[in-house]
Amino acid sequence: MRVRKTKHEKEYFVCHFRQISDFINSLAVLMCLGPLFLCRKLVVTIHCKMFMVHVHLQGSCIVPWVLFETRKVGTGVANRSHGYFNSLPGLIVGVILRYGTPSTSGHDKPFSCSQEDRPFTTLLVNVSGKFFEYTLKGEISPGKIHNVEQNDMLRKVTFDPEVFFNILLPPIIFHAGYSLKKRHFFRNLGSILAYAFLGTAVSCFIIGNLMYGVVKLMKLVGQLSDKFYYTDCLLFGAIISATDPVTVLAIFNELHADVDLYALLFGESVLNDAVAIVLSSSIVAYQPTGENTHAFDAAAFFKSVGVFLGIFSGSFMMGAVTGVVTFTKLHCFPLLETALFFLMSWSTFLLAEACGFTGVVAVLFCGITQAHYTYNNLSVESRSRTKQLFEVLHFLAENFIFSYMGLALFTFQKHIFSPVFIIGAFIAIFLGRAAHIYPLSFLLNLGRRHKISWNFQHMMMFSGLRGAMAFALAIRDTATYSHQMMFSTTLLIVFFTVWIVGGGTTPMLSWLNIRVGVDPDQDPPPTNDNSERRNRTKQESAWLFRLWYSFDHNYLKPILTHSGPPLTTTLPSWCGLLARCLTSPQVYDNQEQLREEDSDFILNDGDLTVTYGDTTITANGSSGPHTATTSLDGRRTKSSSEEALERDLGAADHEVTSRGTRLVFPLEDNA
Amino acid sequence: MRVRKTKHEKEYFVCHFRQISDFINSLAVLMCLGPLFLCRKLVVTIHCKMFMVHVHLQGSCIVPWVLFETRKVGTGVANRSHGYFNSLPGLIVGVILRYGTPSTSGHDKPFSCSQEDRPFTTLLVNVSGKFFEYTLKGEISPGKIHNVEQNDMLRKVTFDPEVFFNILLPPIIFHAGYSLKKRHFFRNLGSILAYAFLGTAVSCFIIGNLMYGVVKLMKLVGQLSDKFYYTDCLLFGAIISATDPVTVLAIFNELHADVDLYALLFGESVLNDAVAIVLSSSIVAYQPTGENTHAFDAAAFFKSVGVFLGIFSGSFMMGAVTGVVTFTKLHCFPLLETALFFLMSWSTFLLAEACGFTGVVAVLFCGITQAHYTYNNLSVESRSRTKQLFEVLHFLAENFIFSYMGLALFTFQKHIFSPVFIIGAFIAIFLGRAAHIYPLSFLLNLGRRHKISWNFQHMMMFSGLRGAMAFALAIRDTATYSHQMMFSTTLLIVFFTVWIVGGGTTPMLSWLNIRVGVDPDQDPPPTNDNSERRNRTKQESAWLFRLWYSFDHNYLKPILTHSGPPLTTTLPSWCGLLARCLTSPQVYDNQEQLREEDSDFILNDGDLTVTYGDTTITANGSSGPHTATTSLDGRRTKSSSEEALERDLGAADHEVTSRGTRLVFPLEDNA
Repeated sequence: MRVRKTKHEKEYFVCHFRQISDFINSLAVLMCLGPLFLCRKLVVTIHCKMFMVHVHLQGSCIVPWVLFETRKVGTGVANRSHGYFNSLPGLIVGVILRYGTPSTSGHDKPFSCSQEDRPFTTLLVNVSGKFFEYTLKGEISPGKIHNVEQNDMLRKVTFDPEVFFNILLPPIIFHAGYSLKKRHFFRNLGSILAYAFLGTAVSCFIIGNLMYGVVKLMKLVGQLSDKFYYTDCLLFGAIISATDPVTVLAIFNELHADVDLYALLFGESVLNDAVAIVLSSSIVAYQPTGENTHAFDAAAFFKSVGVFLGIFSGSFMMGAVTGVVTFTKLHCFPLLETALFFLMSWSTFLLAEACGFTGVVAVLFCGITQAHYTYNNLSVESRSRTKQLFEVLHFLAENFIFSYMGLALFTFQKHIFSPVFIIGAFIAIFLGRAAHIYPLSFLLNLGRRHKISWNFQHMMMFSGLRGAMAFALAIRDTATYSHQMMFSTTLLIVFFTVWIVGGGTTPMLSWLNIRVGVDPDQDPPPTNDNSERRNRTKQESAWLFRLWYSFDHNYLKPILTHSGPPLTTTLPSWCGLLARCLTSPQVYDNQEQLREEDSDFILNDGDLTVTYGDTTITANGSSGPHTATTSLDGRRTKSSSEEALERDLGAADHEVTSRGTRLVFPLEDNA
Repeated sequence: MRVRKTKHEKEYFVCHFRQISDFINSLAVLMCLGPLFLCRKLVVTIHCKMFMVHVHLQGSCIVPWVLFETRKVGTGVANRSHGYFNSLPGLIVGVILRYGTPSTSGHDKPFSCSQEDRPFTTLLVNVSGKFFEYTLKGEISPGKIHNVEQNDMLRKVTFDPEVFFNILLPPIIFHAGYSLKKRHFFRNLGSILAYAFLGTAVSCFIIGNLMYGVVKLMKLVGQLSDKFYYTDCLLFGAIISATDPVTVLAIFNELHADVDLYALLFGESVLNDAVAIVLSSSIVAYQPTGENTHAFDAAAFFKSVGVFLGIFSGSFMMGAVTGVVTFTKLHCFPLLETALFFLMSWSTFLLAEACGFTGVVAVLFCGITQAHYTYNNLSVESRSRTKQLFEVLHFLAENFIFSYMGLALFTFQKHIFSPVFIIGAFIAIFLGRAAHIYPLSFLLNLGRRHKISWNFQHMMMFSGLRGAMAFALAIRDTATYSHQMMFSTTLLIVFFTVWIVGGGTTPMLSWLNIRVGVDPDQDPPPTNDNSERRNRTKQESAWLFRLWYSFDHNYLKPILTHSGPPLTTTLPSWCGLLARCLTSPQVYDNQEQLREEDSDFILNDGDLTVTYGDTTITANGSSGPHTATTSLDGRRTKSSSEEALERDLGAADHEVTSRGTRLVFPLEDNA
């Protein structure tokens, strides 16, 4: 016994030594950034932007890692600490760049070599015998000449705002749409749509009007040095209405908090973003005619509403249409399949942009549609590959944005921090969120069987974090005084909500007595009372959704995918030939297969990963609906959409329970 | 019976209809490209380059798909038809752009607004009242002023040559290095190194000298209108010595051709690329001093050799060092792990570039090292995720390069096609390849027990395809007359070898009587005579490799990874404490696990995928060596590196046999 103890002590020492060496290890990685950063060669070549991207990504990944390795944070926090620690490296680099580099002015005054009526794309300039090539960047309105970046170094580390919209947001939004294939999302479809559309619009108008009041006050006090129109205030409302509760959702996921609340928050935040983007573009499109350019103009207003509806429905249609394009016989080469899948979503983006719609919104709906239809046509290998690919892209893009946000706080040269405006904005977003959540929840509760309780409403109120989308919308246009002030305020709001509100999620959950650490379907237990549960699900599912589901399951899925019942069974008999033509031959094959398989594999649809020492057995089933019924008693005749729905939902449940590590959370006795 | 037949006929019709609809489907996807391409809005905004990338990728992915869907090509060809069909869309787009767009000149003559001694980074130009912003692109030597692109449209579709080197090549090369974890590669290590280093150098000098003869001849005939130095010829030799037999290897893989031949070709082509890059940079570095700037200068020559050795060993060291950085306790968050893994290889690239080494070469060795060490430290989820991520990146990058090559054939504005030079180049690469393969094989056969037979040598001679690397090296510098001629010739050589030689692989294989469609270890059978097989492997493995393997297995792996035997068992007893400190605690854990596991899982290390209807059970084991012996008879005391080596190699074998679809190939009776 004594010997054993000594051995243990020794091993403890060894383990501890290993920990220290791990820490040294991680420090070495961090130090990799040093020489890179100091090397002037990189800063002047093509690598400059690549290098900046790398600094942001590496930094934002390493900080949570180091914090975890040094036992400062727990697994979950390090894993999904969006914005939490990820903005730290950006902040540090920002401070260094701001105060550590000499400010060199890039130009003094404009040349006046006015030659012809058309500008050249390339300019060769002879500077004391040496020739330099210049490329055209764009036209600048005379008023903005002095807004051109002054500092060389800052210029190099600054990214074109369009990069955020065109390169970084699409993977984030697509991934959000792609992961919207959840039972509880559809169960709360109506409420989510109401929160996303009505709620965001209400919030936008309330914040806009309140901010207009603040601006009036500032003008009265004399704190406003330039113009600030009503439309600017509304635009601010639209920008700041895009909520992004990633941190909250990560913690929810971790603690197995109530799934309905999770679905409400996640669904709202996803659709929310789309609404906010389109809302902001239609506000920008609101340009009253006549001499009084900033008063109310009914024609322009209706034009704006038209723009909103047009862009939204156009983007929606485009995303949905390109999303359903089916890849049929590519199972033989999964790599090509994945590449095409990835490129099709990119096509959606470009196509929508080319047609004047919003690419990001189209990509969102493309993701939702692809998750629903195209996913079922992919080979098993491709399914996991695409899912993982988009996960990584999403992770990297989000880390980059948060890290860049930290940088922007210091390196953006036109910050206008107005205390009155900032305080006003905080109050406005609080009131806007309140006016969005409580009245809507009251109205929704009139129609809902499964009411949204008070503590849920408080939690939703609390979870109104602002993130990547608000930042991207705000940085897009920082040309005027008002937009610069809005950008600075947005940055502060994002940091405040992510750092303070995000950090307070866990105390808030326990304070509001929200169920955590429970299986999503603990009551009633999933076995035995199958019929009772089915009834419950039937009641809870949105009425509209059930109607659509049955149409989708019986007609759309068989046409667009290789799963679902053959059309020959769902269509009336008089259109037999048409049904045969439209049904994929693989549907019949799938049916045969299902009949032969063990029913267990049909039921347990989620991702089951059993680690077996070094070898892992992964049972990665599809989440799509199958034609077979539970078949425990051998009956297979009835293949109604109702049962398929039950199974789908059951499968999704299973997925939720089998994922992640369980954490036992100190529960106070609640209900 | 009759009814059944009718049903079958009906189903055939239905199937056929479905095929047609699939084709329409794919046409619809193709048509997606139309509006995008015509939309002027996209061409003038930030999207331009993104859009071009998309056109290339989408096109290069869709062409093989459409050809497969319309039953024009088989599975294997469509799957890995690198450069084969992938250059088609580029060619088409190139023709359209070349002959379909008006040629608008971007500039006439340089401004002479010579002001100060320092050029500005930003230029504001007042063109008849409007202000335009220009950004500095770089200095141009006076001689090259007229080489600046003339056509706006072509300018927009042309990518910076550095993009190929800094963005597209790294994933391709990294993936090549990352997949070099094969039994037969290590068995032929010596030969591969000889082919890659000696062979490439020989080939480079022979091609260089022959081309210098051709150039002399051209000068004599009067076909040369500008300077063409000896160093340019050598550079051409270096550029064109990088072989890239992807198509051949894809077909080998498909047909299960001889694995030793596969290993020789694959290993050679991977290391080859690294040698060619470094060789070309050291030739560029060869700048003789004194008045006669293009005669032989011993000092400059030795400087070049020094540069070669310095860059190569520096890049090698840098790649290897950053490759072994171990991620230890990140198993809890696989996404962060994958992101860091990806970023670490990127760090290697940037770090090497910053230190003046070659990033691409560093990335290659980083990939090899990461596959060997870091891979073992990853969680199971991360392993498949990183593998798949790099596969997709490699696939997309390679497709892009081949598609862009098609475009460059038409849109590159400074093509110089000299028939004499081209014919000379074809003869030179043929002779260079011959002088590289046959004498080296003769010398190697003196030392090899398992001789490289004549038909293997012929096949290697035949497989000297040129691909992405030659293109990237040639496009890097097209400033002078000689470089432009070299670029045009390289393009033609790449197209010829990929289209003609690549297409002739299958006939060539059967003509040369090379074993196809056989399991790599059919003779002797893998079971029963275990000891005999072990002896055979022992003999066949390179002597140097065995020495290194034992060192690596006993000391490096336990220190750097969580696998391998604990150092306490491999190090002499007097350094017990050091051994305990350096061994990861997880090594002991792994040992425990292995002891408890079924030995079958240890032996069958490869990727086993059993499709089970809709559900797939993937047993994705690590290929790293384990401490446990085969343990069929319970003995576990001896954990020698020899046995681990056997098991590793056996596992790799298993992987080869369990992968891919078997194709029965019309074999003529050979041996």
